[in-house]
Amino acid sequence: MPSRRELANAIRALSMDAVQKANSGHPGAPMGMADIAEVLWNDFFRHNPLNPKWEDRDRFVMSNGHGSMLVYSLLHLSGYELPMEEIRNFRQLHSMTPGHPEYGYAPGVETTTGPLGQGLANAVGMALAEKVLAARFNQPGFDIVDHFTYVFMGDGCLMEGISHEACSLAGTMGLGKLIAFYDDNGISIDGEVDGWFTDDTPRRFEAYGWHVVRDVDGHDAEAVRAAIEQARAESDKPSIICCKTVIGFGSPNKKGTAGVHGAALGEDEVAAARQELGWEHPPFEVPDAIRGGWDARARGQEVEDSWRALFENYRQEHPALAAEFQRRMNAELPGDWEAVAGELLTAMDRDGEKMATRKASGKSLDSLAQALPELIGGSADLSGSNNTQFKDARTVTAADPDGNYIYYGVREFAMSAMVSGLALHGGFIPYAGTFLTFSDYARNAVRMAALMKVGSIFVYTHDSIGLGEDGPTHQSVEHLASLRIIPDMTVWRPCDTVETAVAWQDAIERRNGPTCLALSRQGLPFQARDGETIGNIRRGAYVLSDSDGKPDVILIGTGSEVALCTEAAKGLREEGLKVRVVSMPSSCVFKRQDAAYRKSVLPPDVAARVAVEAGVSDGWQRWTGDAGAVVGLDQFGESAPAEDVFKHFGFTVTRVMDTARDVLKNLDS
Amino acid sequence: MPSRRELANAIRALSMDAVQKANSGHPGAPMGMADIAEVLWNDFFRHNPLNPKWEDRDRFVMSNGHGSMLVYSLLHLSGYELPMEEIRNFRQLHSMTPGHPEYGYAPGVETTTGPLGQGLANAVGMALAEKVLAARFNQPGFDIVDHFTYVFMGDGCLMEGISHEACSLAGTMGLGKLIAFYDDNGISIDGEVDGWFTDDTPRRFEAYGWHVVRDVDGHDAEAVRAAIEQARAESDKPSIICCKTVIGFGSPNKKGTAGVHGAALGEDEVAAARQELGWEHPPFEVPDAIRGGWDARARGQEVEDSWRALFENYRQEHPALAAEFQRRMNAELPGDWEAVAGELLTAMDRDGEKMATRKASGKSLDSLAQALPELIGGSADLSGSNNTQFKDARTVTAADPDGNYIYYGVREFAMSAMVSGLALHGGFIPYAGTFLTFSDYARNAVRMAALMKVGSIFVYTHDSIGLGEDGPTHQSVEHLASLRIIPDMTVWRPCDTVETAVAWQDAIERRNGPTCLALSRQGLPFQARDGETIGNIRRGAYVLSDSDGKPDVILIGTGSEVALCTEAAKGLREEGLKVRVVSMPSSCVFKRQDAAYRKSVLPPDVAARVAVEAGVSDGWQRWTGDAGAVVGLDQFGESAPAEDVFKHFGFTVTRVMDTARDVLKNLDS
Repeated sequence: MPSRRELANAIRALSMDAVQKANSGHPGAPMGMADIAEVLWNDFFRHNPLNPKWEDRDRFVMSNGHGSMLVYSLLHLSGYELPMEEIRNFRQLHSMTPGHPEYGYAPGVETTTGPLGQGLANAVGMALAEKVLAARFNQPGFDIVDHFTYVFMGDGCLMEGISHEACSLAGTMGLGKLIAFYDDNGISIDGEVDGWFTDDTPRRFEAYGWHVVRDVDGHDAEAVRAAIEQARAESDKPSIICCKTVIGFGSPNKKGTAGVHGAALGEDEVAAARQELGWEHPPFEVPDAIRGGWDARARGQEVEDSWRALFENYRQEHPALAAEFQRRMNAELPGDWEAVAGELLTAMDRDGEKMATRKASGKSLDSLAQALPELIGGSADLSGSNNTQFKDARTVTAADPDGNYIYYGVREFAMSAMVSGLALHGGFIPYAGTFLTFSDYARNAVRMAALMKVGSIFVYTHDSIGLGEDGPTHQSVEHLASLRIIPDMTVWRPCDTVETAVAWQDAIERRNGPTCLALSRQGLPFQARDGETIGNIRRGAYVLSDSDGKPDVILIGTGSEVALCTEAAKGLREEGLKVRVVSMPSSCVFKRQDAAYRKSVLPPDVAARVAVEAGVSDGWQRWTGDAGAVVGLDQFGESAPAEDVFKHFGFTVTRVMDTARDVLKNLDS
Repeated sequence: MPSRRELANAIRALSMDAVQKANSGHPGAPMGMADIAEVLWNDFFRHNPLNPKWEDRDRFVMSNGHGSMLVYSLLHLSGYELPMEEIRNFRQLHSMTPGHPEYGYAPGVETTTGPLGQGLANAVGMALAEKVLAARFNQPGFDIVDHFTYVFMGDGCLMEGISHEACSLAGTMGLGKLIAFYDDNGISIDGEVDGWFTDDTPRRFEAYGWHVVRDVDGHDAEAVRAAIEQARAESDKPSIICCKTVIGFGSPNKKGTAGVHGAALGEDEVAAARQELGWEHPPFEVPDAIRGGWDARARGQEVEDSWRALFENYRQEHPALAAEFQRRMNAELPGDWEAVAGELLTAMDRDGEKMATRKASGKSLDSLAQALPELIGGSADLSGSNNTQFKDARTVTAADPDGNYIYYGVREFAMSAMVSGLALHGGFIPYAGTFLTFSDYARNAVRMAALMKVGSIFVYTHDSIGLGEDGPTHQSVEHLASLRIIPDMTVWRPCDTVETAVAWQDAIERRNGPTCLALSRQGLPFQARDGETIGNIRRGAYVLSDSDGKPDVILIGTGSEVALCTEAAKGLREEGLKVRVVSMPSSCVFKRQDAAYRKSVLPPDVAARVAVEAGVSDGWQRWTGDAGAVVGLDQFGESAPAEDVFKHFGFTVTRVMDTARDVLKNLDS
């Protein structure tokens, strides 16, 4: 039987060999954390390599994602469908083994990591998901939701601000089944961290209310085992296991230095490491005995089978709960979903109220949340302003986690990454709110949601200079444009209650990518539409009003500026012009429509076009064309009442009308 | 003589009255922190209201910037040129008193705050500036740089991740003259913070190596005074004074609740507060006795005069140092600057090396840093990759702060805000590096630099899919576009060594706004140019190569894609086409050129244009027009060697040539 060290060395060998072959990658972390990973995966980790999507599996996240070869080694060795060929193709085009673990590439990768600290925040979201689901679904004798979330993290993760936000909240939430391993190797890319990172990390985590296991030798399997047992025994607090490790353990000349962090060891050093480790096997060969020590398939199938037996009994005793659990974990919307969404839309249209779209969003949530128990909301300390807290929302707390609303505190970045963690865990449709401008604080987590194709929903209110007195620090200018250009992102900026309801419906139904809702602080008038027009909202842009025949000019607006367009259209029509008003709540969605539809809304032979949006003009040329014009805002805002600010920056009916006439005049000349 | 409480109540009255008149704003924090501010400003704060730019003044930052009325009250009462009329016009268009303190509006506002936590990080940058400058310029008997940086902060600031990054590094750097006041009032916007913020903050700051003064009654002037004395006595560590306060102190019915945080009290409650505070004076009237207690002009002029006397003696004994100090504090470039910059450019052109632009950037720094002692660099743990560490750079450490290079650790957000703090303090031209994609982590600090018009320089390397194997998490796609649309931002993406040198020169000379340098990981070929062409680089876009006569087609490229354009041009010219290649290293700068120059580069009568950039196509329509095309990347990248990734996504000479031919064909048809 192979020793623990031999088992761990399989990770080290695969990692250094794959990095060497690619001549690119990070051998240091996998070699340093191999012993910890070996103990965790072989002694504790409950999973089934034959079914990576088993609902109650433990979750494993490598927040120091550059150590991806550790993850790939673990998945390969324990029996996931990640053949050696993929390990050999590490970091090559179309392999399942990209440079950082990417969700959706290799089975068993629970989230995409690499941007430091975010995996940790994803893991906090996953652990929170477990706690909330357990409170909702578990019944006496039936702990059908009962798993740990394990996260590996390095010095880099702990220097990042998001680690503070996420871990502080994890402490408050009492996430007892979250166990973090701190790879305390004293090295980051620039060298020995004591020049720039001198935190007393255990003390810091005690300040967050965590259970801290100090001074564990990360290369002593028994010590690691004892630490994990301690951590698992503490059920009221998240645990951090502080492991002293040697980065690049096994590399005789490079271990313990930054040189082993992010580059191949070199052929000579790989050979020397083989000798140091006593690993005599050629690259990408793992002896059967070692494979046997790692193979978790039989054991995994057993634990899943016994869970399935439990679940069958649960289904007998609690059939409704069991069905609901499966529906939620399968990300199926409830049977009455379309009816509920349709009723909301009908009501919004019938009531025809003037309302801020943030309020319309709150009202939408009031309706939709009743029908969607999987909806879990929250805000970064702006619940009242973001209108994110729906009627009868139940707050999730450490002591009473059976809820659907989270007070995230002023933690936009962790919130956004936790939202992805909730989505990735399954069982939830998560959303979270802040002011649009503070999407900046979370920008990379929003990007990561798009990269991972998870259905996170970001509720961004106070979406322009219409925010008023709080001034330029809080007034969005470039934010709409900058969110729209994130690949695979959907941004909605509705103009009234009806468009808001449609945006929410689209966001809820979009389970393969994130959605941003940009919502006004200020009241916006209702726009009357017929049924066909309402149906077209979902296509991202549509003809809101038209004159007979081919338009002379098209006014294109979004959100609060649609009303400006309709008013300007009225004035221009009185002057005898044929004017079409196009409302474009989501250019992202409109871009995905077929060319025929796009041309029906913006006919190529109508060159006179004016786009109106209280944000940067960049990006609008795509829709206005060379002959068109943009009424935009290419500078920072000002602090003053909203109406004064809009006027100051020229967002007036007169200016829109003037611009339309100018465009027509230039075309004539 | 008025009591301390009466003095403090002047702040409370002005704050609640100004908010009431604006019917908008945040009375809670000013009323809660008034007693602390009174003690700090009247007993300790060294400043001269008659000269808000006195070099050795103490710096004061209100990181919880929503409490702007506290700042305006202090400035007004102590004698800055901020007349009562401006207080009355709080939050109105064109007033000096916007909703949040905006740098450049009212004298004495040291930085723009509001986005939580960033003021704190600015303050850390300022305190670091003081420490480094003191080490550089002070001489025995001449502590010409010797001042404190005081920062107020609330629960919101401390929940934000940036507070972790900034305070952790402040501890490591031993910033003994940084004194932070924690307004521990137990309330944030969503209510009592114990539902979402349960940190043991003193313990947390001890973990950072701070000096912690615990449990101070923020309404007991003597206790506050004693705490400040303790904090000032500790010279090796930053201090945090944890003040228990009551938010909205003085408002009998709303104090201690979230209701007093961000809304006017209402006429009745203002009246009740007047009674509770014993403040009998009408709104916006401050009795002379109270004014007398606050007026700091005479005292301020005295302290500045005595510093000036010291400085005159210093000038006698250390004339070179004195001249250098004044030059740096006046933000004047050295006399030989143009020669130095010119030599660098000449050398780059002469050597004509193929080189990654990140390396060209490092080489530029090697030259420029010799001539610019005010240059202070750093990186978020990527010094070697960002090539930010120039030859003979001296590392700033707690024990030996006389340096010009900072290891920021993996703290992009705090780094970027600290860079602004260094710039705002004066005496430095700061720059800092990370990967372009991780500009996301710092995005709002980058925006704030633009909003404040400070000359921060951000060095962003690995600027595209050319980063290769690290994959989509690290490959920039939307980042160039998203940085360019920040108002007043300058982004440079140079294509070779010469453009890199020009970009650096422009960044250094741009002292009224920030610059981002987007630099390649991979080697880029040198482009040969004549002298006039080199001169035009500085205009943001220019004709790099041309055929005789009016071009048939214009190829526009940036950075690594310029070489693709020149190769494609070669091929197309061989086919008999007249091809112009425009290099556009900075569309931001090009936009600011006069129309005649812009038309000379992109003649309106040449409609066939192809833009090539390994980033999102959005924004390029402005330059290509309706008839043109963009070879861009509107999806996330892939992990593979750079050349494979470029090829995979169609960044090839063939594709550029094909696109140009297609554009011409469509124009013909």
